[in-house]
Amino acid sequence: MSIQVLDHGYVKLIECYGTDSRIIEAARMSTDKGFQGWDTDAKLLAYLYNNKHMTPFEMAGCIFEIKAPIFVFREWHRHRTQSYNEMSARYVPLPNENYIPTVARVMAAGGTNKQAQGSKEISSFEAQLFVDRLASDYDCAEDSYQKAITTGVPKELARLILPVGRYSKMRAAANLRNWFAFLTLRDAPNAQWEIQQYAKAVGKLVEQNFPRSYALFQEMPHG
Amino acid sequence: MSIQVLDHGYVKLIECYGTDSRIIEAARMSTDKGFQGWDTDAKLLAYLYNNKHMTPFEMAGCIFEIKAPIFVFREWHRHRTQSYNEMSARYVPLPNENYIPTVARVMAAGGTNKQAQGSKEISSFEAQLFVDRLASDYDCAEDSYQKAITTGVPKELARLILPVGRYSKMRAAANLRNWFAFLTLRDAPNAQWEIQQYAKAVGKLVEQNFPRSYALFQEMPHG
Amino acid sequence: MSIQVLDHGYVKLIECYGTDSRIIEAARMSTDKGFQGWDTDAKLLAYLYNNKHMTPFEMAGCIFEIKAPIFVFREWHRHRTQSYNEMSARYVPLPNENYIPTVARVMAAGGTNKQAQGSKEISSFEAQLFVDRLASDYDCAEDSYQKAITTGVPKELARLILPVGRYSKMRAAANLRNWFAFLTLRDAPNAQWEIQQYAKAVGKLVEQNFPRSYALFQEMPHG
Amino acid sequence: MSIQVLDHGYVKLIECYGTDSRIIEAARMSTDKGFQGWDTDAKLLAYLYNNKHMTPFEMAGCIFEIKAPIFVFREWHRHRTQSYNEMSARYVPLPNENYIPTVARVMAAGGTNKQAQGSKEISSFEAQLFVDRLASDYDCAEDSYQKAITTGVPKELARLILPVGRYSKMRAAANLRNWFAFLTLRDAPNAQWEIQQYAKAVGKLVEQNFPRSYALFQEMPHG
Repeated sequence: MSIQVLDHGYVKLIECYGTDSRIIEAARMSTDKGFQGWDTDAKLLAYLYNNKHMTPFEMAGCIFEIKAPIFVFREWHRHRTQSYNEMSARYVPLPNENYIPTVARVMAAGGTNKQAQGSKEISSFEAQLFVDRLASDYDCAEDSYQKAITTGVPKELARLILPVGRYSKMRAAANLRNWFAFLTLRDAPNAQWEIQQYAKAVGKLVEQNFPRSYALFQEMPHG
Repeated sequence: MSIQVLDHGYVKLIECYGTDSRIIEAARMSTDKGFQGWDTDAKLLAYLYNNKHMTPFEMAGCIFEIKAPIFVFREWHRHRTQSYNEMSARYVPLPNENYIPTVARVMAAGGTNKQAQGSKEISSFEAQLFVDRLASDYDCAEDSYQKAITTGVPKELARLILPVGRYSKMRAAANLRNWFAFLTLRDAPNAQWEIQQYAKAVGKLVEQNFPRSYALFQEMPHG
Repeated sequence: MSIQVLDHGYVKLIECYGTDSRIIEAARMSTDKGFQGWDTDAKLLAYLYNNKHMTPFEMAGCIFEIKAPIFVFREWHRHRTQSYNEMSARYVPLPNENYIPTVARVMAAGGTNKQAQGSKEISSFEAQLFVDRLASDYDCAEDSYQKAITTGVPKELARLILPVGRYSKMRAAANLRNWFAFLTLRDAPNAQWEIQQYAKAVGKLVEQNFPRSYALFQEMPHG
Repeated sequence: MSIQVLDHGYVKLIECYGTDSRIIEAARMSTDKGFQGWDTDAKLLAYLYNNKHMTPFEMAGCIFEIKAPIFVFREWHRHRTQSYNEMSARYVPLPNENYIPTVARVMAAGGTNKQAQGSKEISSFEAQLFVDRLASDYDCAEDSYQKAITTGVPKELARLILPVGRYSKMRAAANLRNWFAFLTLRDAPNAQWEIQQYAKAVGKLVEQNFPRSYALFQEMPHG
């Protein structure tokens, strides 16, 4: 199960563990009872989530594979409760794939986040110019990168010129509590639009595996 | 799959996620290759483990249910990278089950750990006396506990007299890297004999699910 | 600076690091500016806290020494973001100090937490009986403990009979973000009254060192 | 106290907490004794460190401010036990400072790390060409970046073209145990040379504040 994101990226589900009912079982350890069926336990799940008794949500989780631009990974890796294994440009040249936003995206500016907005409103002409220049700057960087590698510059230095718009790839594992913390911050209007798209894809895959827990998150995001 | 431990305890496997080959897949993210088969990758798995490249071992894990005396859980909970849901004596009276060591265990003293040893060698007569007295002291504590609960003392206070030899129950989740860290410290000669028995049970269940990784751990324990 | 808690316990400040203004400096890294003075920055501190931008609060922290009953430490140690060093009954006999609640405390039952309440209202007579019996049960446990140690039972087994009302001692370190998470859960009406008293002592010492941050916490506890 | 690193970077000590003797005090909690003086306790400190009893080293720590290229921060941020506050190119344009390695550095290739080495030996002529081209590519990227910002492209998108050789700035906090884990991996021959230089600067500042602990690390690095 894989969801396309941006122009070259994706979020792919590798594996989930636990279920909505396992979360109930874990919570019921405190009173030494098991899962009683959703007639009774839908209410308990909601109570746990809404009152931030989040430790039972640590008994389930997901592992994803993600392809995203470096600047998205830079934000992602601030979530220190996830486990990561990423492609390394020290060891293997990063493929020539780079993120180019659409003109509409460029014109939408920083969305609701004032600090991230542009210095002034941008015309569609200027937005198009930016997009075109970006494409040619990416080509230019790739050209230098290849030349460096070919002439024997170590990969770990050849990469210095690579732009943060270049794609990389990783696996990320976390328990459900921490995926909700991620979604709360990144599937949010003041997050950068690009990482929001990744968060929405993560959310869809979480929803398929933990429909009851995800429904609670959607009513009230929190970490 | 459940393994009996001590006189009333157990370690029960609730769920594992990931496999030995998933660990390889995660490690291969760095060079953008997948699992190549064990002919090639047995060597890579050993390299990762032996050189402490442990992040790929975070992409797999286990959830256990454990019944153990409180003093064992007190040691267990120092492992802050595991997730816990435990029975709570605030909410439900703890059943009257208490750990009584065998006479042989009492005479074995603190094993290799000098600090934990007794003040002098103990006779089998004295060891037997201790075991008998313990049983009667446990009864005495239970008697007071039941009286307190019956007369309306809140459970959270009635428990004050409960001894640390009483059994409790919990679920514990961790990734494989952190289970190895646990096993390194607790399936070790200077750990208390009782928690060693739990660690050995955890180890057996880890072995069944991750035979190749566990074999590497056995050759060289480390966290 | 030490604050007495319960009948034999305390919270003692060992050391704090960082200050309210250091938190501002850390937050200002994002825009490459420093601390501007509280005329400007009181508002920024409130913005950070109230919008849960908590990472700058990780740049400050406190280390405390705490003496508390084992059942309080059992709850405390669930906070896995703190660092702990505790007295060990494997290595040294625990001194004969045990928590005895007042009659008023016993009659206050589980407070606002219904699950923790007693099975029925308790009379002052029954409460007094419980307190007296507890004292004599503690004596009884101590007697068995000393006998065990004297006859050569290893300390790690002699302790089996020790009640969870016995005092132990530890140091605990955490950053300010995590102390606030602790206070949010433990200086709260549904926490057990005993750990609330420790949380209040921690709060007072935090307040003395981080008066502006603590004022924000008091207006709106959250972790 | 600040140490220059690479062409435009630095590591600056903001604050340390704890001392070598505080580490002893914390370790002595287990037996309820305090610091006894270095005549006795030098041996204990060595025992703790050499036997990986690392929790007492969590009772001390350091906060640093670091200026380094993005590719160095990318490696640094994998250390998930540190706390970070970094400059954000979403909110403020990153100053035009970029890392240019020396010709000697380029020719030293990937050092002991075979995977990171160049495809062949590089001549000094080719190395010089790389360094020159890098400088002009950096100028080119800056030119596009400024144009984008001027025409109203939101900063969060204008940054796409910024190379990973550009400098950023952050504060990083961790306890001593985790700084030793960082130094073990990064002040090591198979780490990239650039982050090694930062690790060496961190090490010097740690040494000034924790001379006895650091001496133990130097004899035997481990995390």
